[in-house]
Amino acid sequence: MTVQELAQAFTQLLKDGKFDEAGRAFWSDDIVSMEPMAGDMAVLKGRATVEGKGAWWYANHEIHSVKVEGPYVHGQQFVVRFSMDVTPKGGARMAMDEVGLYTVKGDRIVEERFFFGSGG
Amino acid sequence: MTVQELAQAFTQLLKDGKFDEAGRAFWSDDIVSMEPMAGDMAVLKGRATVEGKGAWWYANHEIHSVKVEGPYVHGQQFVVRFSMDVTPKGGARMAMDEVGLYTVKGDRIVEERFFFGSGG
Repeated sequence: MTVQELAQAFTQLLKDGKFDEAGRAFWSDDIVSMEPMAGDMAVLKGRATVEGKGAWWYANHEIHSVKVEGPYVHGQQFVVRFSMDVTPKGGARMAMDEVGLYTVKGDRIVEERFFFGSGG
Repeated sequence: MTVQELAQAFTQLLKDGKFDEAGRAFWSDDIVSMEPMAGDMAVLKGRATVEGKGAWWYANHEIHSVKVEGPYVHGQQFVVRFSMDVTPKGGARMAMDEVGLYTVKGDRIVEERFFFGSGG
């Protein structure tokens, strides 16, 4: 599978709203997930831990809509853009605009690194 | 200057159509520019060489419109998305959708890496 093919298949699952399935199918067991923030969730390692973050996120955010664009491919990496309309538990409804930079090795995603936008 | 501030200032120049000025203001003299393709222009090093690529590109493409979105920041890196409506010299008018991943070191952009989208 080429990086382009993996990126297309992974992104199609995201576009179909199958976020859990995308991770199960393409994350390495040693996946590293990096958020642009300080604190406990800045860098998480390993499939179980990263799946835990996903479960926490879905439990604590009501998702009204998600628009997924991409993938954008270069060598062993690709980028996906997410535009979300969400309400954090106990918070105000907000627009989130971010991109994920994914690194591929041996038909698996070994790193995901998220970048936050400020609109635009 | 924080990476967020540099990214905002650089991206604002791009949004204003000041592509040359953005490079002059923020590229390192040792800037490395990487395109997702094989061939002579895949990896270019140094300000003069990368400026040459820009000059070649502008001379060989008629730009009808450019939409610039971002920046999206994580640590020392940021992402900018470009949606362009262009006509390559002697070719057919086309939509280009790509993102640039920029790496910052010491108040300068030391690497730019472009990712091509396939629509989306």
